[in-house]
Amino acid sequence: MSKKSIIYVGSKPTMNYILAVVTQINHGASSIILKARGRAINHAVDVAEIVRNSFIPDMDIINIEIATEEVTERNGFSTNVSLIEIELKKDDSIADIRKS
Amino acid sequence: MSKKSIIYVGSKPTMNYILAVVTQINHGASSIILKARGRAINHAVDVAEIVRNSFIPDMDIINIEIATEEVTERNGFSTNVSLIEIELKKDDSIADIRKS
Repeated sequence: MSKKSIIYVGSKPTMNYILAVVTQINHGASSIILKARGRAINHAVDVAEIVRNSFIPDMDIINIEIATEEVTERNGFSTNVSLIEIELKKDDSIADIRKS
Repeated sequence: MSKKSIIYVGSKPTMNYILAVVTQINHGASSIILKARGRAINHAVDVAEIVRNSFIPDMDIINIEIATEEVTERNGFSTNVSLIEIELKKDDSIADIRKS
């Protein structure tokens, strides 16, 4: 019942990731984790906000974490990159109250 | 004692905002709120991570919030923009343990 889905947000159009979230929810996932690195971080925040405001209103952001990851590039040098994890949960209890 | 400082993160070099955080802490602020909108969001995450990992190790991220704001542009059209608020707190108790 508490199926978790992870969606990696990258540089594709925002709507692709929104569709991925909506599809996962419709397939029974109750919790979505959006993960993004570097410049895709603002993309992930956009996805979370648009899903919550326009597509699935009874979805809550229950946790946001940020961290740093070391990435080794092709030339052998390693750089640090920031990452974000946004956990969204469909609040079924809120939906039930609204329906009644 | 619990002075809060707000730093708005924009498109200037990351190091400018890191310096602003360090300066505020050295001037007695115990809590820093980093605010950023749109494409500056990943910048704010970078600032928080670099401060925590390299400059002030006894600083903790105590809260992260994301939201949407309506912005009216010069041409009269309004668009939605995502924003992030990252609250950093200097954990003096941890610092005291390390010193002893």
